[in-house]
Amino acid sequence: MPKYNNLDTTHAIKTLTETKPYDITALDTRRIRSMTTPIAADLTYSYATAPVDDEIISALDALAREQELLEKYRATADGEIMNTGENRRVLHHLLRGRLEGDVIADGVNLRRFYETQRTRFSDFAAAVRTGKERGATGKPFTTVVQIGIGGSDLGPRALYLALKEWARAEKIAPILEARFISNVDPDDAAAVLHDLDLETTLFILVSKSGTTQETLTNEQFLREAASHRAPHLDISRHTVVVTSQTSPLAENKSYREAFFIDDYIGGRYSATSAVGGVILSLAFGPEVFQRILTGAHDADTAAKTGDIRKNATLMDALIGVYNRNILGMPSTAVLPYSQALSRFPAHLQQLDMESNGKSVNRDGQPVAYPTGPVVFGEPGTNGQHSFYQLLHQGTDVVPLQFVGFLASQAGEDTHFQGSTSQTKLNANLAAQIVAFAMGKQSDNPNKNFTGGRPSTLIVGKQLTPEALGALLAHYENKVMFQGFLWNINSFDQEGVQLGKKLTTELLTGKPSAQLSAYARMLGL
Amino acid sequence: MPKYNNLDTTHAIKTLTETKPYDITALDTRRIRSMTTPIAADLTYSYATAPVDDEIISALDALAREQELLEKYRATADGEIMNTGENRRVLHHLLRGRLEGDVIADGVNLRRFYETQRTRFSDFAAAVRTGKERGATGKPFTTVVQIGIGGSDLGPRALYLALKEWARAEKIAPILEARFISNVDPDDAAAVLHDLDLETTLFILVSKSGTTQETLTNEQFLREAASHRAPHLDISRHTVVVTSQTSPLAENKSYREAFFIDDYIGGRYSATSAVGGVILSLAFGPEVFQRILTGAHDADTAAKTGDIRKNATLMDALIGVYNRNILGMPSTAVLPYSQALSRFPAHLQQLDMESNGKSVNRDGQPVAYPTGPVVFGEPGTNGQHSFYQLLHQGTDVVPLQFVGFLASQAGEDTHFQGSTSQTKLNANLAAQIVAFAMGKQSDNPNKNFTGGRPSTLIVGKQLTPEALGALLAHYENKVMFQGFLWNINSFDQEGVQLGKKLTTELLTGKPSAQLSAYARMLGL
Repeated sequence: MPKYNNLDTTHAIKTLTETKPYDITALDTRRIRSMTTPIAADLTYSYATAPVDDEIISALDALAREQELLEKYRATADGEIMNTGENRRVLHHLLRGRLEGDVIADGVNLRRFYETQRTRFSDFAAAVRTGKERGATGKPFTTVVQIGIGGSDLGPRALYLALKEWARAEKIAPILEARFISNVDPDDAAAVLHDLDLETTLFILVSKSGTTQETLTNEQFLREAASHRAPHLDISRHTVVVTSQTSPLAENKSYREAFFIDDYIGGRYSATSAVGGVILSLAFGPEVFQRILTGAHDADTAAKTGDIRKNATLMDALIGVYNRNILGMPSTAVLPYSQALSRFPAHLQQLDMESNGKSVNRDGQPVAYPTGPVVFGEPGTNGQHSFYQLLHQGTDVVPLQFVGFLASQAGEDTHFQGSTSQTKLNANLAAQIVAFAMGKQSDNPNKNFTGGRPSTLIVGKQLTPEALGALLAHYENKVMFQGFLWNINSFDQEGVQLGKKLTTELLTGKPSAQLSAYARMLGL
Repeated sequence: MPKYNNLDTTHAIKTLTETKPYDITALDTRRIRSMTTPIAADLTYSYATAPVDDEIISALDALAREQELLEKYRATADGEIMNTGENRRVLHHLLRGRLEGDVIADGVNLRRFYETQRTRFSDFAAAVRTGKERGATGKPFTTVVQIGIGGSDLGPRALYLALKEWARAEKIAPILEARFISNVDPDDAAAVLHDLDLETTLFILVSKSGTTQETLTNEQFLREAASHRAPHLDISRHTVVVTSQTSPLAENKSYREAFFIDDYIGGRYSATSAVGGVILSLAFGPEVFQRILTGAHDADTAAKTGDIRKNATLMDALIGVYNRNILGMPSTAVLPYSQALSRFPAHLQQLDMESNGKSVNRDGQPVAYPTGPVVFGEPGTNGQHSFYQLLHQGTDVVPLQFVGFLASQAGEDTHFQGSTSQTKLNANLAAQIVAFAMGKQSDNPNKNFTGGRPSTLIVGKQLTPEALGALLAHYENKVMFQGFLWNINSFDQEGVQLGKKLTTELLTGKPSAQLSAYARMLGL
């Protein structure tokens, strides 16, 4: 059994505190050439512009060993109870393949359970795509709408958007259009539903517990809208559910199909389960979803590597903690130079901030050091014309996580002023990395760039399903490693409970005076 | 002429440093009732959960007077050279109406110039909408595509999305569908263009300088795509430009129409100029755009009020600086409980971070205090299921800017488990404000909520064009007030220049060794 100790009790953190960070304004080509490590699926991690040198990397390596990161990673894959507060295993790796042995719980082989569900929804998706499974009036489905929130929305939506252009370029057919309803704001459902042809639309209701307020409310919204607009249509024949076997939704026989996950798949880690799998298999085919899983599994496997110089995910996690705890940087930006990844930062924002935005350790004791940072981001080059001003010249330093690809997805391009769009895109990326690291002195302080603004870079050949799966798993594993470093539980979310409780108090008529005062202000 | 002094030279900042913040865990209903101020267009600002009390508010008032915020605001409206580095006036207020007198520059009445442009694009939009102005093959336009980046994209896009459902519910007809191409990533243009009917699409090319790399490249992408897909079509008859009169685009006679702005309208402040006005007038009609301007002008006027207790925008600005400079909070979240405002935080991110992410003062001297914070956000309730965990229980405190509305836009709703969606939405909002402020003690540290997490709230009746305009102007003016407090120039963006320069060096064959090394890694 690994030992669980707070970050500030380690020897390595003391060493790191006493060691000067590497001055990245002195960036040289030797660093750029040598400080790269493969992840998986043709993704490479480059950390030449991180403020670390051999001495710091050795201390980070020592920290990784002292905090037994790989042992904890293996224990997770092996099915130990890593979500201590909720007494749950953490098994999203098993969705992608066998990382350690099988996990047997209460006599059930859970890998086979996930595998069975995947086979079921793959078959269903294939039947929908070939027109074997059709709507209640006999028409083939052309659109799928996911009704879910948080992990049942952000990951699946980000992955769908990430592959939509790729699938078109690859002439994947049919591509079922996917839409998403998440917010309890009725304008969200109204906007998505108003121009849909319900006869050719399949709805996927996603809630692990089967009790998510927003999702059940939006289901009701759908049912009422359908009963007005298409009273002849049996909307239950147009609705499948993704839930746990013990949830109220699972008991409802009126859905067309039910696909199952369980308590060992956390919402924010559920993109590779049926939560993401049903909609992605419907939209692009089960083969494409399998390719995402392959990429993720390859990244999961790579993250087991012992030498941190050969384990990009471990290195990325350690550099992030170095920026946060040694250099005191409170936020980090995710900057994909790929329009297809437009909502990937929003997914990572949940993954990271919900996992590691904690103030108590794994044993429930307050920690005396900063944990998870604020995570935000938008695609480049768009961000360059937006918030990069602050990143370059603001008073706080924000570490940057760049992502780029050699080739575009659609393969369509134009030659203008001596270069293609893709060349311009990547020239901008290269220029930003160097500009942030090295800066440029000017006698005019307003035009002065101090540099010293750290970054890392993940480069892929193209944003394929495998690359996307590897990218997703890289970040999932990075967040877990950081949770182990901070000695926190990255798998619960007690912080969301108080708001839920007060909402219920308000809606059921037992609010505090303060709550009532705000309710009045808000027209309730 | 107002005096320009650094924040740390003021007497008030010393008073504030020596004064204890108000403990918002002690929130009471008297505060909730009394600490509200109207903005404009039925928007009200509530700051009961900000960590300020009478003593602090008095000191903030003194700070506002000491930094002569209103004088500087009036000087801006009056046409003084507020963008000192670039020697430019800052005149976006004039787009909405006369705040001070007229501004005459080089013999030109600039309000009339902006008014003339607005009349021109209003007439054009009306003619397109009635089918008088048609495509080259005689078909009416049904879709408008804006090609622009940064301020030519984020604001117009956020406003379009904010009013799309409202326009549908109001039976505004026709609603021209708007799309946006921004990124130099060729997959962005490819994705937007591939299923468009070019014969019924009007393109709006937006670049003040007429030299924006991304925008010109995407124009070329469009021309090539059109020449392949619709060789018979004269695409220049399908393209209008928004630019300055001195730009290369203005000289090109081959566009169907050119609408003008000038150097006194900064990109991130340009949503109410032709930059936003052409596309919004085309999409929803010039009357709707005029209503946005009316709301903005009303907010501009309200921001002139002397008493900070009656000037919500001034109060909001001062509270933000209090959180940033006295309490040391490095980021802030914008959390609209309105799906229609899904991209409004991205616009504010640019507006705020590009305006105030500066390290030198107005005279180009380094400042010794933090300036603009990191700004991020997503709509509620979505964010509750994503990053709110960190906001409630993370180790850093993030001040929160909530926005909500009494009524939805579409007016469609469902009754489920005793309440409507809209009621649930606002009950969640009320619950979150109280939960963040007051917290809730628990013997289990993992379920403990310390509270003391400050917020403010803007409440409107409904997200109408007027409310949207007022909301936009409120934030623009807030950002300007904060810039005055920090004594920085909120109107330039020198921080974006180095990246542009290095990109050009790379593309034109004169890169440094480091730049070349990254270029190789990125396949260039």
